[in-house]
Amino acid sequence: MEFYVNKNIMKTKRIFPKQNRYNFYRFDMNENPEGLPKSFVDSVLKEITPEFLATYPEPDNFVAKYATYMHISENNVLTTNGSDMAIRYVFETFAKESSEVVTVSPTFGMYDVNCNILGLKHIPVEYEKDLTINVEKILNSINKGVRIVVLVNPNNPVGNVYSRENVERIIKRAKEVGAIVLIDEAYHYFYPNSLIDVALKYQNVIVLRTFSKLFSLAACRMGIVISNPTIIHYLRNARLTFETNSIALLFGERILENQGLINNLIESEITGKKYLVSELKKENYVYLECEGNFVLIKPKYFSPLEIEKVLCLKKRILIHSYESGILKDYFRVSIGSEKMMKLFTDAFFDVDKK
Amino acid sequence: MEFYVNKNIMKTKRIFPKQNRYNFYRFDMNENPEGLPKSFVDSVLKEITPEFLATYPEPDNFVAKYATYMHISENNVLTTNGSDMAIRYVFETFAKESSEVVTVSPTFGMYDVNCNILGLKHIPVEYEKDLTINVEKILNSINKGVRIVVLVNPNNPVGNVYSRENVERIIKRAKEVGAIVLIDEAYHYFYPNSLIDVALKYQNVIVLRTFSKLFSLAACRMGIVISNPTIIHYLRNARLTFETNSIALLFGERILENQGLINNLIESEITGKKYLVSELKKENYVYLECEGNFVLIKPKYFSPLEIEKVLCLKKRILIHSYESGILKDYFRVSIGSEKMMKLFTDAFFDVDKK
Repeated sequence: MEFYVNKNIMKTKRIFPKQNRYNFYRFDMNENPEGLPKSFVDSVLKEITPEFLATYPEPDNFVAKYATYMHISENNVLTTNGSDMAIRYVFETFAKESSEVVTVSPTFGMYDVNCNILGLKHIPVEYEKDLTINVEKILNSINKGVRIVVLVNPNNPVGNVYSRENVERIIKRAKEVGAIVLIDEAYHYFYPNSLIDVALKYQNVIVLRTFSKLFSLAACRMGIVISNPTIIHYLRNARLTFETNSIALLFGERILENQGLINNLIESEITGKKYLVSELKKENYVYLECEGNFVLIKPKYFSPLEIEKVLCLKKRILIHSYESGILKDYFRVSIGSEKMMKLFTDAFFDVDKK
Repeated sequence: MEFYVNKNIMKTKRIFPKQNRYNFYRFDMNENPEGLPKSFVDSVLKEITPEFLATYPEPDNFVAKYATYMHISENNVLTTNGSDMAIRYVFETFAKESSEVVTVSPTFGMYDVNCNILGLKHIPVEYEKDLTINVEKILNSINKGVRIVVLVNPNNPVGNVYSRENVERIIKRAKEVGAIVLIDEAYHYFYPNSLIDVALKYQNVIVLRTFSKLFSLAACRMGIVISNPTIIHYLRNARLTFETNSIALLFGERILENQGLINNLIESEITGKKYLVSELKKENYVYLECEGNFVLIKPKYFSPLEIEKVLCLKKRILIHSYESGILKDYFRVSIGSEKMMKLFTDAFFDVDKK
């Protein structure tokens, strides 16, 4: 080697998702398969001018609007380049090489990737065989080397949630060892019991939100960090000057101004999920009705990987299966509208038969 | 403190630029004051659908197109969330705490900020009093603690450039101590003598490009890293899964397909700069005709800070002045079209008089 290379980054193995997904029905990454209403999108696009595109992003208006919407203060809010970047900044700011990071396992993959990149020690707390989490195991894993405890609530891909009481026990235990608790609420709105009030009550808690799921802006990359002003100050110190692009900020503002739109998005997902679950029941499928915008389904006649391949090739439908581990008998399907869920069940039932 | 905080991040002082700049004539941050042609922008916006916004970004098409456009390979290219993020990844990957980073001074401010955030030791090589750089001083500063040498070419804000021969001397010296040379070509096209061919000839060289300057997409945040496949591989390891947003990628593709548009942007800047310089000459101003899309001007009757204030308040024009240091007698004005430059000189000459 002719130059120095960070050895953690050198050793990190990365898998980037497959591309050319636009012409498929996308039920594999918990996006909204249909997106925002076209009339709304077009009305926002009309605001985008050459001058707007040529000017460096200005986050203040969005942040003010978001704070008002959430009944919190502007200094409780930070925008990031997707919540992926929020995770990175939290790890960089509140942990150092060899610090321990506790998550349940499986969970969102970028927690492990960021541990590898930054040389942090990932402590995975495994699910029980019945796909429940034993909170005592999380508490017991919070020893004095731990600097960050991650709770994705609801967790992806298992879809379980944490009670307020258990979260407070974890926060208090984390505090004893000098650790931050990161509560990832990517699937909020699908499961509306937010823990932001708990987060702002303690000194060591951070909540993440995203505009990629219910708000259907995965293309735009907008993550939100919510915490107390001290933590927000440190994360702002660690952040780029121009972190979130102007288009994300503009769409974000217009969504927040439009409660009717938000209600319709939620309603559409609820109806879609009800439809999916009732169809699965009718056909006697084993499934896990997760608390996010996804459901885990056990096929009857083929392996999840076979179902994934056939749905992709024959039906242009994308789902997510698991090569190994506790979920290897299931695949995950993202929730969309009833129309989308009918499209999925029609195709799936047609494929998963003798 | 109830939890661990990275002390470098804690101590870093950040200054975020002022906002509400949309209603001003913006000559302060080297953006294109007018932006892309409206017809072009509107035609690209028509491609943005709800599905496009709801889907995670897919960089491959853009990367392929960019590589073809540049006559390089796809594995020479990486997109980042603005070149700010490219700088961050380069520092994280090729330096470690207490490594030394050589830059000239003054230069683009984010180099120093990222040194502070990451605990790197910034070694600034000062300009001579006549605003030239002594390359021997750069060479002498590359001692064995140095891991990164930054050359912004042309440099911002001074606007000088580096000869090919001197850059190769610096690269060879850097190689002796195991350092990377980062050549920031943010102002390429305004100064078309790229060093990409040099960069790809050596193992330890990285070139940065941006779509925020000539390509007028500062709002979208798109930076490009160009280097050999080994370096690109390491930086990809360090990067987010979804780093650059889809709107940046889409506009980027459409710009690259439209050489006539690129030629017009370049022509417009050349004409604007010629106009500005000839007007300054006519009025006997002292100025530095920088090799980027900016010019440094010494006012006759007022301090640069006073000019900045009056232009802002009375003419709604933004320029950039320097509180102290070698440029304190100058202000920097970004170049736009001849129309924009006439607007600027009319206002400036009206303000800078007895």
